[in-house]
Amino acid sequence: MSRTEVTQETLVSLAKRRGFVFQASELYGGIAGFWDYGPYGVELMNNLKASWWQFFVREQPDVVGVDGAIIQSPKLWKASGHIDGFNDPLVEDLVTRKRYRADHLAGADTNDIDKLSGLLKDKKSPDGNPLGPVRTFNMMFKTFVGALEDEDSVAYLRPETAGAIFANYKNVLDTARVKVPFGIGQIGKAFRKEISPRDFIFRVRELEQLEIEYFTQPEQAAETLERFKKLYDEWFAQLGLDQNKLSWRQLSEDERAHYSVENWDIEYKYFGEKPKELGGIANRTDYDLSHHAEASGRDLRYFDAEKGEHFLPYVIEPTLGAGRLLLAVMDSAFAEEEVNGETRIVLKFKPEIAPVKVAILPLSKKLELSSVSRKLYTDLVQRAGYNIEYDETQSIGKRYRRQDEIGTPYCVTVDFETLNDGCVTVRERDSMKQERVKMKELASKLIF
Amino acid sequence: MSRTEVTQETLVSLAKRRGFVFQASELYGGIAGFWDYGPYGVELMNNLKASWWQFFVREQPDVVGVDGAIIQSPKLWKASGHIDGFNDPLVEDLVTRKRYRADHLAGADTNDIDKLSGLLKDKKSPDGNPLGPVRTFNMMFKTFVGALEDEDSVAYLRPETAGAIFANYKNVLDTARVKVPFGIGQIGKAFRKEISPRDFIFRVRELEQLEIEYFTQPEQAAETLERFKKLYDEWFAQLGLDQNKLSWRQLSEDERAHYSVENWDIEYKYFGEKPKELGGIANRTDYDLSHHAEASGRDLRYFDAEKGEHFLPYVIEPTLGAGRLLLAVMDSAFAEEEVNGETRIVLKFKPEIAPVKVAILPLSKKLELSSVSRKLYTDLVQRAGYNIEYDETQSIGKRYRRQDEIGTPYCVTVDFETLNDGCVTVRERDSMKQERVKMKELASKLIF
Repeated sequence: MSRTEVTQETLVSLAKRRGFVFQASELYGGIAGFWDYGPYGVELMNNLKASWWQFFVREQPDVVGVDGAIIQSPKLWKASGHIDGFNDPLVEDLVTRKRYRADHLAGADTNDIDKLSGLLKDKKSPDGNPLGPVRTFNMMFKTFVGALEDEDSVAYLRPETAGAIFANYKNVLDTARVKVPFGIGQIGKAFRKEISPRDFIFRVRELEQLEIEYFTQPEQAAETLERFKKLYDEWFAQLGLDQNKLSWRQLSEDERAHYSVENWDIEYKYFGEKPKELGGIANRTDYDLSHHAEASGRDLRYFDAEKGEHFLPYVIEPTLGAGRLLLAVMDSAFAEEEVNGETRIVLKFKPEIAPVKVAILPLSKKLELSSVSRKLYTDLVQRAGYNIEYDETQSIGKRYRRQDEIGTPYCVTVDFETLNDGCVTVRERDSMKQERVKMKELASKLIF
Repeated sequence: MSRTEVTQETLVSLAKRRGFVFQASELYGGIAGFWDYGPYGVELMNNLKASWWQFFVREQPDVVGVDGAIIQSPKLWKASGHIDGFNDPLVEDLVTRKRYRADHLAGADTNDIDKLSGLLKDKKSPDGNPLGPVRTFNMMFKTFVGALEDEDSVAYLRPETAGAIFANYKNVLDTARVKVPFGIGQIGKAFRKEISPRDFIFRVRELEQLEIEYFTQPEQAAETLERFKKLYDEWFAQLGLDQNKLSWRQLSEDERAHYSVENWDIEYKYFGEKPKELGGIANRTDYDLSHHAEASGRDLRYFDAEKGEHFLPYVIEPTLGAGRLLLAVMDSAFAEEEVNGETRIVLKFKPEIAPVKVAILPLSKKLELSSVSRKLYTDLVQRAGYNIEYDETQSIGKRYRRQDEIGTPYCVTVDFETLNDGCVTVRERDSMKQERVKMKELASKLIF
């Protein structure tokens, strides 16, 4: 459903100009890798998150939700392997002191220090200077809990949301009406010290994840992975993601984590360029639960009453980056069209996820019109429970263009005729067709 | 509407036993001041947040939303005064090395070091040991962005959500259809190094705020503050908060920040004890914008086209703690009742915010019943878009008690008669009245 190929540059500019995404702390020169969502970005993001939660948590009878803290005990990250192993290979320009990801400079998809050192042996930095040795550095943000900044008070911002799910696996089993197989879903922020954040909101230091850990009998793990691939396909279609730009790619053994036995990336062709990771589904085996059982000294096995045996469930992990999803949704929705010799930009969002569902546009600021329009706004926003915009300035043509650019499916104009016939004009975004509708019937027409 | 006074101990135990709130990293002995929300806690919290967003952002035509990053440029926190002034007075037990809030030990509501030193002069620690001098310590969580942990890479976890709003004030003015007066709302996490986190989710280190910064003409600030007090009252009533436990308290000049000219706390009598702060509304004058204008070198004045003059808006800040709100909602909903000689605990949530709206309870696990029940579940959850629970184990009496304790307004039992007459039994939580309803009519009865 992609109507027009958009460049990253055009989309970044639209996102800023129309209040979707701003650089964090832009007022102070910014801070690399961090972004703020503006009025339309936060509505779009909230709609995407609510849709995910409804589809993957509420509508799946065997999935429940949790919301864990960003700061957890460091013991959790020791057990999960993040303190020792969540590293990136880093190399330094010996003249400028700029740091680079060694794997990026080497053009190789590996974290193996020896391999990277070999590949970079005679290479220069992008500025043409000699490079230092390849080193690893831990990607977790470190902080201190308590008054003193010493080793005893070190803690980390979670590098992924999954940790709090594994740590609560037993709690959820004990309190919710679930039994294995079942899943726990979570939406939340995670933090990674990307050494070179880039590509707008694609590679960032503060990210948001939409993630499920699904606990299952080992022999049903492969089937569960298939189930979630299908659910993803269905949900992406619902969101209006361009089906031609989505593709599944199975990761090779080299690309997978050592404990993972099957791993698929769902890739999206952003900006018509080569496909990049939007999310993935991994079969993590019993790696996580066995490590947490060992480190905590707690028995995390599940008792299968029918078979009369204890076992450690396998975990299937479907995960998505919220920012990457939002970017794919914007890329898919973007269209540039000729209308009466002029170009209009329009974001053809599905109404369900559009940041503004309806714009109420009185044709004049005169009190007679604005009082009718205000009432219409209040009635509709209270009954429909969605976001509506009220805008009474500028020419109607400019206001239509503006609503097209933020992807509002319906514009409702209130004119002086409205005072006589009780009708308003409803303009549909994509067809631009206008229709005269009785105000009384507006709700039944526009509430979805 | 509080039915029975509940103690903190009882509520904490219910919250854990029924999957509302777990101690973060409990599997690893916990981490003080951090909490995870379980399956019912996250649904309740999401409902509260969605209700706030709908009421305060979407339904107010002059309020829009943003969602800022947790990590911002340190320059922002320098300008806001947090790096220099966001301090707590601290005192150390010279024997045990335990640290205490000096104002708490002194039993005084002040941050003045001299005053506190005087008050604590001859005091001992709670363990009966001598105390060291009163010192200030900064409450912001420090971290490092980038590979090196040096002064150049220091950053902070935001101590309040407001910062990202002030930093985006111009961006929002330039991109959304707003003009002064208007407000920006935000929901998000903030982090504070509470030296003695306590009282369950009341005083925590990782908190969530529901906050608006409303920018207005200075002469309309007082009126705006009144407007938001009324809106709070209206919304709290909608949520079912016990009106007898809520009270407004105006802060004295001593209690206010020096730049604030009027400040009200909305207090809630948790657990029947003395009223404690649930949220507040402050008139922050032009303190924030003037400091950010000065520090950034940008002109943040607003041009009033009618008067033809530039001015710096005043800010009215209505703020709420999400965890404190959830706690007040649970406290208000709690009831213990005698039913046929037995005690039942019931959380009488308003249906709109209940974590589970409907429980589908087949009376037997036999395939005929479960297939009908599953279909009912799927139909209802997809059409209503809310959370439903499916539970087919244990006696029906136990299942009712369980749903009462998580506050589910409606239980629907499916029995063998259902296969003949197409009817199910709907039990209402508070009256416990049961009614036979046609399955076809269930949606129109239960969707709100």
